[in-house]
Amino acid sequence: MAFLEKLLAASRRNHSLICIGLDPEPERLPAHLRDQPDAILAFNRAIIKATADLVCAYKPNLAFYERLGPAGLSILQETLGFIPNHIPTIGDAKRGDTDNTARQYARALFEIYGFDAVTVNPYLGYDSLRPFLEYQEKGILIVCRTSNPGARDLQDILVSQEEGQPAPLYEYVARQVLKWNTAGNAGLVVGATYPEELQRLRQIAPELPILVPGVGAQGGDLASAARYGTDAAGERAIISASRAVIFASAGRDFAEQAAYVASTLRDTANQARPASQGS
Amino acid sequence: MAFLEKLLAASRRNHSLICIGLDPEPERLPAHLRDQPDAILAFNRAIIKATADLVCAYKPNLAFYERLGPAGLSILQETLGFIPNHIPTIGDAKRGDTDNTARQYARALFEIYGFDAVTVNPYLGYDSLRPFLEYQEKGILIVCRTSNPGARDLQDILVSQEEGQPAPLYEYVARQVLKWNTAGNAGLVVGATYPEELQRLRQIAPELPILVPGVGAQGGDLASAARYGTDAAGERAIISASRAVIFASAGRDFAEQAAYVASTLRDTANQARPASQGS
Repeated sequence: MAFLEKLLAASRRNHSLICIGLDPEPERLPAHLRDQPDAILAFNRAIIKATADLVCAYKPNLAFYERLGPAGLSILQETLGFIPNHIPTIGDAKRGDTDNTARQYARALFEIYGFDAVTVNPYLGYDSLRPFLEYQEKGILIVCRTSNPGARDLQDILVSQEEGQPAPLYEYVARQVLKWNTAGNAGLVVGATYPEELQRLRQIAPELPILVPGVGAQGGDLASAARYGTDAAGERAIISASRAVIFASAGRDFAEQAAYVASTLRDTANQARPASQGS
Repeated sequence: MAFLEKLLAASRRNHSLICIGLDPEPERLPAHLRDQPDAILAFNRAIIKATADLVCAYKPNLAFYERLGPAGLSILQETLGFIPNHIPTIGDAKRGDTDNTARQYARALFEIYGFDAVTVNPYLGYDSLRPFLEYQEKGILIVCRTSNPGARDLQDILVSQEEGQPAPLYEYVARQVLKWNTAGNAGLVVGATYPEELQRLRQIAPELPILVPGVGAQGGDLASAARYGTDAAGERAIISASRAVIFASAGRDFAEQAAYVASTLRDTANQARPASQGS
């Protein structure tokens, strides 16, 4: 099943726009797990088990596995094996390189790890994204406007457009993505910390799936994300929280508390999204 | 020793501006190696042994190891162990993510793999690069103008500047890097396929090390890269070739042929670089 279909099916089944970022940090694991040899694996498994009926997707960020060395990538593989097949997985990798190299990254993420979707960086242009976009069943989520303060350094720069007023670079990127999306498998990444920009980008790209990270620890407004990130039917937004969910408690109740936070996020998002939710 | 010192020392010792990209592809290995269990490792070791007196640096691109799964990262670690200590290693990773994530990537590349320098992507702005730049002994090579045709899609867009005429985005990035370079450990990545742009960027950043990929398989002009990429003393350019060197022959003489191509590249570059070469 293509990524977008799988996403919509999982989102409807669990009545949720929430995606959990599986970004474990050894220093922040519950104390009782830290001595276990497979602490991270046990942690991820418990989080997935407790939240699998509350999410529309899971999103491991590769950095948190790479920092563990080669063994970390085995942990990532095993973690992906715990995720129920009907829930899509997003490899948050933000890769971007020239075409022969991009082909290797695409192969790693889609064929070795088997992600349903990945995040990529647009700075190297279309031919750096094409090796990903050629996997027509996979979702290619292109970084557009990020949630960090430094996003403004490049993404907000005003550039001339063929028509109309100069627009910020991130808008230009969104318009390019619409052109590049010949197979219908592209999407955007737009941080939750800038609701007005999210609203504007949803207007520019009414049908693309939009991954909205930055809710929780980064201070993004969840209700705005659900209101402005969704399409006309109240769907196609993937609102992602990581630390706020997975580190909700450092005690033995960490999985239970993660589920509590995830269900609260889910309910808050559902109250804010447009009424016709396709469910 | 800080990256720039180590680079200059290796470049002077070997009288070379050439960097070899260690980007093995299983399909292109010499036939007699393919059946060995450690074929890639044997290949990398032989290439390094044959070329270690011809280069100023080695640059493994992470993608070529990631596509091999978790074991590929172990191969990367072992490969790095074969590189003589006096030759700097550049992890070509082009990472770019928000600060907490960037910190994990920096930890992986510098602390787990021990690279002397890495390539990073500027699209997420200063705070996404700061976790790398904080490693003051390491080199942070920021992608500016790449060697692929699609580079023009974003990097060539004209943006307004505080002073003077609108300039392409890649120039704007180079000027930002000069501001961000408070510890003196930043550099640029500028493709060899656009000599005029390389010349312009060297004028803007007369003292930064510049990694110049795209010589060889990508068609960049080596003499122009050496002429325009170097600083006033004929140094601080790192001219990188991958496929043209490591796959020079698919026979039993692959390492010998790689050394032959590398020494030819070295000599051609040395003839084109400015006269006072600090050696």
